[in-house]
Amino acid sequence: CADTNTNIRLTLPVVCFVWQIAMIILFGVFIRYDEESDTHWVETKAHENITSDIENDFYFRYPSFQDVHVMIFVGFGFLMTFLKRYSFGAVGFNFLIASFGLQWALLMQGWFHSLDPHTGKIYIGVESLINADFCVAGCLIAYGAVLGKVSPVQLLVMTLFGITLFAVEEYIILNLLHARDAGGSMVIHTFGGYYGLAITWVLYRPNLHQSKRMQGSVYHSDAFAMIGTLFLWMFWPSFNSAITDHGDGQHRAAINTYLCLASTVLTTVAISSLSQKTGKLDMVHIQNSTLAGGVALGTAAEFMISPYGALIVGFFCGIISTMGYIFISPFLEKTLKIQDTCGIHNLHAMPGVIGGIVGAITAAAASESVYGKQGLINTFDFTGDFKDRSVLTQGGYQAAGMCVSIVFGVVGGAIVGSILKLPIWGDPADENCFDDEVYWEVREPATHHLLFTIQPLEKKKINYSSQ
Amino acid sequence: CADTNTNIRLTLPVVCFVWQIAMIILFGVFIRYDEESDTHWVETKAHENITSDIENDFYFRYPSFQDVHVMIFVGFGFLMTFLKRYSFGAVGFNFLIASFGLQWALLMQGWFHSLDPHTGKIYIGVESLINADFCVAGCLIAYGAVLGKVSPVQLLVMTLFGITLFAVEEYIILNLLHARDAGGSMVIHTFGGYYGLAITWVLYRPNLHQSKRMQGSVYHSDAFAMIGTLFLWMFWPSFNSAITDHGDGQHRAAINTYLCLASTVLTTVAISSLSQKTGKLDMVHIQNSTLAGGVALGTAAEFMISPYGALIVGFFCGIISTMGYIFISPFLEKTLKIQDTCGIHNLHAMPGVIGGIVGAITAAAASESVYGKQGLINTFDFTGDFKDRSVLTQGGYQAAGMCVSIVFGVVGGAIVGSILKLPIWGDPADENCFDDEVYWEVREPATHHLLFTIQPLEKKKINYSSQ
Amino acid sequence: CADTNTNIRLTLPVVCFVWQIAMIILFGVFIRYDEESDTHWVETKAHENITSDIENDFYFRYPSFQDVHVMIFVGFGFLMTFLKRYSFGAVGFNFLIASFGLQWALLMQGWFHSLDPHTGKIYIGVESLINADFCVAGCLIAYGAVLGKVSPVQLLVMTLFGITLFAVEEYIILNLLHARDAGGSMVIHTFGGYYGLAITWVLYRPNLHQSKRMQGSVYHSDAFAMIGTLFLWMFWPSFNSAITDHGDGQHRAAINTYLCLASTVLTTVAISSLSQKTGKLDMVHIQNSTLAGGVALGTAAEFMISPYGALIVGFFCGIISTMGYIFISPFLEKTLKIQDTCGIHNLHAMPGVIGGIVGAITAAAASESVYGKQGLINTFDFTGDFKDRSVLTQGGYQAAGMCVSIVFGVVGGAIVGSILKLPIWGDPADENCFDDEVYWEVREPATHHLLFTIQPLEKKKINYSSQ
Repeated sequence: CADTNTNIRLTLPVVCFVWQIAMIILFGVFIRYDEESDTHWVETKAHENITSDIENDFYFRYPSFQDVHVMIFVGFGFLMTFLKRYSFGAVGFNFLIASFGLQWALLMQGWFHSLDPHTGKIYIGVESLINADFCVAGCLIAYGAVLGKVSPVQLLVMTLFGITLFAVEEYIILNLLHARDAGGSMVIHTFGGYYGLAITWVLYRPNLHQSKRMQGSVYHSDAFAMIGTLFLWMFWPSFNSAITDHGDGQHRAAINTYLCLASTVLTTVAISSLSQKTGKLDMVHIQNSTLAGGVALGTAAEFMISPYGALIVGFFCGIISTMGYIFISPFLEKTLKIQDTCGIHNLHAMPGVIGGIVGAITAAAASESVYGKQGLINTFDFTGDFKDRSVLTQGGYQAAGMCVSIVFGVVGGAIVGSILKLPIWGDPADENCFDDEVYWEVREPATHHLLFTIQPLEKKKINYSSQ
Repeated sequence: CADTNTNIRLTLPVVCFVWQIAMIILFGVFIRYDEESDTHWVETKAHENITSDIENDFYFRYPSFQDVHVMIFVGFGFLMTFLKRYSFGAVGFNFLIASFGLQWALLMQGWFHSLDPHTGKIYIGVESLINADFCVAGCLIAYGAVLGKVSPVQLLVMTLFGITLFAVEEYIILNLLHARDAGGSMVIHTFGGYYGLAITWVLYRPNLHQSKRMQGSVYHSDAFAMIGTLFLWMFWPSFNSAITDHGDGQHRAAINTYLCLASTVLTTVAISSLSQKTGKLDMVHIQNSTLAGGVALGTAAEFMISPYGALIVGFFCGIISTMGYIFISPFLEKTLKIQDTCGIHNLHAMPGVIGGIVGAITAAAASESVYGKQGLINTFDFTGDFKDRSVLTQGGYQAAGMCVSIVFGVVGGAIVGSILKLPIWGDPADENCFDDEVYWEVREPATHHLLFTIQPLEKKKINYSSQ
Repeated sequence: CADTNTNIRLTLPVVCFVWQIAMIILFGVFIRYDEESDTHWVETKAHENITSDIENDFYFRYPSFQDVHVMIFVGFGFLMTFLKRYSFGAVGFNFLIASFGLQWALLMQGWFHSLDPHTGKIYIGVESLINADFCVAGCLIAYGAVLGKVSPVQLLVMTLFGITLFAVEEYIILNLLHARDAGGSMVIHTFGGYYGLAITWVLYRPNLHQSKRMQGSVYHSDAFAMIGTLFLWMFWPSFNSAITDHGDGQHRAAINTYLCLASTVLTTVAISSLSQKTGKLDMVHIQNSTLAGGVALGTAAEFMISPYGALIVGFFCGIISTMGYIFISPFLEKTLKIQDTCGIHNLHAMPGVIGGIVGAITAAAASESVYGKQGLINTFDFTGDFKDRSVLTQGGYQAAGMCVSIVFGVVGGAIVGSILKLPIWGDPADENCFDDEVYWEVREPATHHLLFTIQPLEKKKINYSSQ
């Protein structure tokens, strides 16, 4: 009877079809190729005196785009396969909501950032695709908090609203406040983290212990999760540099992130080892906390934080994130009733906030002597309306941006959580959480079922022999 | 006794050695570096007034090449690991035949497309490598139809003839008919699909049910297959844009494919959910049909199909491909005696034909108002002998190309299938199909053996207790 | 009691913290952004008349860098997951030592290669990151020899000294001898191979057979290892071309490596099949020997070795490496007391030496008629102090470089091995080697434990029934 309400044969196809048709109509009305992906590029080149096709933004950004794309689908997807029996849901639903989300993101971000007032069209190119993937990342982070406890229909609803909220907060932070956030410490990770935490707080399940047997990992599921971890870790330099300025901006952001993440690994290992009596390491920490440095450098990666500065950020993030898994997650669950399956608080929310603070401080401390006159203008885009802004003011606006992302995450998540609480979405019963068999045709009995079958048998046999 | 004929200790090494030595000799006679990969590039640069090394085609195409390379070896290889006990054969034989095939493809494609009439040499560069990988893709598609039922020697023979046929049909379609097919809907997918289907039709095994126990997936083999799916899905924009025109051509092809594939995911999920009583999803659909959009946009990806046009193609491909797995595959097997292990009919053959039709229609509908005068010439390469061709004529030739690829696939596959039917290739008996132990040293007993051992024991014990 | 000495709760955190803090201090003193990653790039551009941001070295090398990065973390990491119960150690410790090693490499290589005498600073850019990853590769190769038999603390010590030795030998070979070695046949693979072999020789464990049950693979661990194999194989063209000359140098190195590796696969399969009575293939060979061609072309990849020359190198490497696994590894273990877990002798040391020899011969055979006058100068960097060096002399210095790398590997490894023999590092007892449970929290009992439990039960039951 617990399963009766998980029938999604009506809702899931309807949502998929209707929303996809809506996307087609909206794309038909609004979305066009930008001048670098349109066949008129040959005229643009002549007109703007561009001498070579290699100047097309495609060649500046496509390799980074593909790395980001891998992070979204393989990175986030496989990172969540650590549960013993939720790999299909982890990879498969991640695939579904990212595929919907990126379409909706192109529209939402287009309306807010690049709607041409004359033609009423949104013109897209490779940078739009990166931004759409970024936008999706916020929702995938939130998925980590509710992993195993929601239906795919709920995830789609969560994504629809998540993308919408994302586009608005991003507009406020990047355009109105003119804060810098190339790798999205605030815009992506802080927002996504708190959005997910607020949702899972509203969806609190007091009897979640009934699916205790399905929680935790098995040996091979941990190995699969390391595929996700490593692709996220390796490509994070591309993530943080994907939309920074051409030339030194992309170059520096990649170097900083590379160094920061290396440092994070060492302190994560140190704290993980300290946390066990015999110094054994915990895969949960290695899979997650090693990535916190990338999150925390999202804002400052393009700044002249200097190589040792990047190492310092990574150093503290590894410590804080791992301690989060050891101390804060149990506290959140027991005291605040926040059941955070993947520990996104420790991997995204908290490091995101650190990243926002690091960004504000390093922006406020920027100087012409370090950046050069033009370098400072380029890095902080002190042009147009903002050409007289001081670095101190910039630091203040960065901090303000931080707050905006938290508020949007918490308030937005609470509202969306309430919507998801309606008893119409087909979410699993408490005793069926974290189990792929609820939403997937699973052809093979789980190995742990086998274990359960055998162990009582052994005992019975001992009884026989004692007869 | 069923195994006696699978001894390949003579044939496999002989084929590998002799063919590899033949490759070395032919490469020695024919293959040279092109002017962009030769040390004389410094002179070419001076001669052609090229101002920067970044103009070398390497920088336009190498990132796409590497993505395609990953699709060939990890994408195709892991996609086929879904069977419970054929992962070694899936990844390993894929590795073997692709490694041979790309060498043979460089020769065959070189003879047909780029043999210098003066020197008698073939000059290769990064675009040749991409084309060789493309050519190989056709044979790997065909492998999907016969997966688990043939020996590695048969696969090598199939690849030898497959590459040869590919180079000829490609020459006819791209050079003689002057059809456009950058992502290979016709040249790669339709040809490869029908080639494989014709072969498996000739090799029909009426008693294949004897290896029923080895068919289907287990939990982890499905997770491995998702690695293949995702790397194919993510890198498909690179596949369809790898050899399109520099600049807007590559840019547009990537955007179109990105959008089309996203749309495919939603309709695949919708149909998959509809197909089960309680709306559960089937991994077979998610692993395969989500990719159909990329196949179907292979021809039109570089055209001005417009973003919403790409979404529409993806929309219908997800539906058609998933319905193919539900309805057409069983029909093909029962009625037409076509045993298609991976369902390449639904993932490659049918979407390839759709792609050819979409390409023909969009080409015929192209106009100067949309493309611009020069844009139209560039996109369809209306130069030289073809400078007066109209778009309508082009549409007709696209459709003709489609037919050529089907004919080459069906007729070529039937002939090659007959050769592979000879009883000398060491293929497995009906009861040993889909089992790695036939061609691989497997150190560990299969888990399902364990299951078979335990279950009778349980029953016996129950008898004891009732005594 | 065997486990008592594996407590690393003190040593591992201390080493991680202290070394990471040392890195931060040294980076603070020495490491700065180079002119292409500094905000002053805008001035550099103006000053050096660079017309476009695309001329920034980032765009020449970043895609290759990311491929190399994947090889280091996913390639090497997953290649070593083949053992049935050491996946966490394989991927996790690989992750740890690479993250430390790349920081230390930036310093060591910086001091030796790019310390600015005026400012006392090391200026880093994307090429520095590639070189750091290369340097790390040497130590990861060495890890392969001792896999499963050492503690993470030992690995960190091994990496500290390994990177140090690497930077010195690299300085001698590339700067003093002015040998060419873009893909590191000598500098990376020969050194790393002999370094690891010498260490494992010193650490010889006569009773290693006590952990026999943990050696060898299981079905899924072999599939995981193929992920490592394939990412190494596919991205090796990027590895060998990552730091070669812009333009034709990178282009040619990629082509040569692509071809060489394809050829290796066929001869590996041939020999592997020949080695078994019924021609069955062995995953150990497919996972490892298929890569030997990439190693052996590390030096000559940028030379005009010609496409068929690359095929020939690959042809012989596949044969020799596979025969190494069949004949030499057992000999090394029995006679020379070298226990080489991953067979790095056959994959790195021996093919590395072949690569050095191939490099010396092809350098000595280079001619102006093939390379062109300027091409010869560019390829061998016959400028400055070396402008009058003949190709024959160059060949001699290449051979000398080969010897330097062997000497550094063997002598350095012997010394470092002696340090690692001290009884303070927490290495596992002989009966606990190759077992993740020594250093990792493993939540699930191993499947083979299950097997051990069941089989005696069966027998007991048979006894009951006979009572």
